[in-house]
Amino acid sequence: MSASVPASVSSSRSLKIGIVGFGTFSQFLAKTMIKQGHSLRATSRTDYSQLCADMGIAFFSDVAAFLGADNDVIMICTSILSLSQVLRSMPFTALKQPALFVDVLSVKEYARDTLLQVLPEDSDVLCTHPMFGPESGKHGWRDLNFMYERVRVRDEETCSSFLKIFEIEGCRMLEMSCTEHDELAAKSQFLTHTIGRFLSEMDIESTPIDTKGFEALVQLRKNTESNSFDLFSGLYIHNRFAKQELKNLEFAFEKLKHKLLKRNDEEQEVNQ
Amino acid sequence: MSASVPASVSSSRSLKIGIVGFGTFSQFLAKTMIKQGHSLRATSRTDYSQLCADMGIAFFSDVAAFLGADNDVIMICTSILSLSQVLRSMPFTALKQPALFVDVLSVKEYARDTLLQVLPEDSDVLCTHPMFGPESGKHGWRDLNFMYERVRVRDEETCSSFLKIFEIEGCRMLEMSCTEHDELAAKSQFLTHTIGRFLSEMDIESTPIDTKGFEALVQLRKNTESNSFDLFSGLYIHNRFAKQELKNLEFAFEKLKHKLLKRNDEEQEVNQ
Ligand SMILES: NC(=O)c1ccc[n+]([C@@H]2O[C@H](COP(=O)([O-])OP(=O)(O)OC[C@H]3O[C@@H](n4cnc5c(N)ncnc54)[C@H](OP(=O)(O)O)[C@@H]3O)[C@@H](O)[C@H]2O)c1
Ligand SMILES: NC(=O)c1ccc[n+]([C@@H]2O[C@H](COP(=O)([O-])OP(=O)(O)OC[C@H]3O[C@@H](n4cnc5c(N)ncnc54)[C@H](OP(=O)(O)O)[C@@H]3O)[C@@H](O)[C@H]2O)c1
Repeated sequence: MSASVPASVSSSRSLKIGIVGFGTFSQFLAKTMIKQGHSLRATSRTDYSQLCADMGIAFFSDVAAFLGADNDVIMICTSILSLSQVLRSMPFTALKQPALFVDVLSVKEYARDTLLQVLPEDSDVLCTHPMFGPESGKHGWRDLNFMYERVRVRDEETCSSFLKIFEIEGCRMLEMSCTEHDELAAKSQFLTHTIGRFLSEMDIESTPIDTKGFEALVQLRKNTESNSFDLFSGLYIHNRFAKQELKNLEFAFEKLKHKLLKRNDEEQEVNQ
Repeated sequence: MSASVPASVSSSRSLKIGIVGFGTFSQFLAKTMIKQGHSLRATSRTDYSQLCADMGIAFFSDVAAFLGADNDVIMICTSILSLSQVLRSMPFTALKQPALFVDVLSVKEYARDTLLQVLPEDSDVLCTHPMFGPESGKHGWRDLNFMYERVRVRDEETCSSFLKIFEIEGCRMLEMSCTEHDELAAKSQFLTHTIGRFLSEMDIESTPIDTKGFEALVQLRKNTESNSFDLFSGLYIHNRFAKQELKNLEFAFEKLKHKLLKRNDEEQEVNQ
């Protein structure tokens, strides 16, 4: 893939990137970062030392040692629900110099506000949301959406070196405010996860007479289930626009049911 | 495409096929039937004489003349909701010899029962449901599902010549009872249309930060809207399993909402 990369984006500086929360999503991101030649280190609640050793990543059980390890970028990849607790338990005094903190959470106002409350004033903050995951990004990241907001950036060079990771892979780079993101994501991503989870509750399965449309729903169920329920809950609990969306959703369903039952009654009448 | 057709299925006899109800779906089927060399004629509530002339199809405003026109097959393609009225108004005494009646309605027990009630005893009955339409079948019918039940077939040769139309195009031919079809279709096709219509009510639109999953839902909305609301209502009103499915659907949504709000409350408590 690198053969088709324009010269301007291929000359990204090699970064020392520290990962906080080495779950499914950051493992997925890490593979591409390593491929691009960045140097990774990680810390997490769970002990990932073996997996990290296999991937060529330094794993730190001790968060203070992790923070002291001279990171250019510290990438926050914990679940939405654990963000506040994880950040508030970090001994930031162990930082030897200011770093760029980047988060990849699927909700953005909440991530921005928490980072600004908790981080030392001299650290830079870049809020991002790669709008893809291990399933949709398994054949590469070309033309997949990457949202970001430069919330507090003084070291421009480190920030743009980090963004280049996604540019190089061909992502559609979308700079927008965290608020704008949350409003759009409630109407798109949260709705999609809600329908996916709903299809799980319905326990839908392939039948011998599937239509193409139904096949797409079976796939949506499968993809949604590959994410944690924590992620889905986080999309709801920490995006203020999602609350309204759930109400809209119920309202739309009631309206549709009403139309259908009305049509049903009309038919009964005609046939009496 | 015909180059890859095995000899056994390519030798289909040319049929005289009369179409009742020349709407979107039968126009779509007609194109392939003409391509295969069958001779078509049609009747419909609306005057399609111009369109039919352009396609090389004889159009009859007079249903008695249509019935008298020596059809091997009479294919019923009206909406689900108008089936009973359309059939009951047809002067079957105008038939000069028994024909094979085929229906393509998306609900099957109701179509079977109505055909058996209304048609002359000496006509054959084949109930079918091509599980695709102008959207999903626009690049050909290969590997698309075609359900059928030989409800009352004495003239085997005409029946298998008709089925060959779909075999030749590469459909997956699925012989099953109308009851089995309706049970499976309520859980798959009716559910898909309900979600598609629900997405219309929500008025979902592409955003600059679509995920792949959301893109699939925007497509589902579009495809569902290309069908009439009559078709959707028919799927509900005349499939007895769909009634239960709508209840399951509401129940599943309530269960999901409950899980989400419970998780929300737990988070509020932890953070107090
Ligand atoms: N999956 C995706 O497609 C996707 C796409 C874009 C953005 N994101 C975002 O990326 C982040 C990670 O997502 P994910 O898919 O890996 O799954 P997730 O369930 O949202 O998060 C899992 C991560 O959170 C950590 N974690 C969970 N509870 C914790 C706690 N109580 N204390 C400390 N750490 C805790 C886990 O640590 P351990 O592994 O050490 O247990 C793991 O690293 C989320 O913020 C999500 O919104 C995900
Ligand atoms: N669309 C699909 O993808 C698809 C796939 C498989 C099976 N089917 C089945 O195929 C049939 C036709 O579907 P469709 O998509 O064309 O749309 P539809 O809205 O279900 O049916 C339209 C047809 O019904 C006729 N019709 C409607 N109301 C009538 C009335 N009161 N009196 C007489 N005729 C009436 C229309 O006649 P005029 O055009 O003359 O007004 C037109 O031919 C349906 O039974 C449907 O379940 C559709």
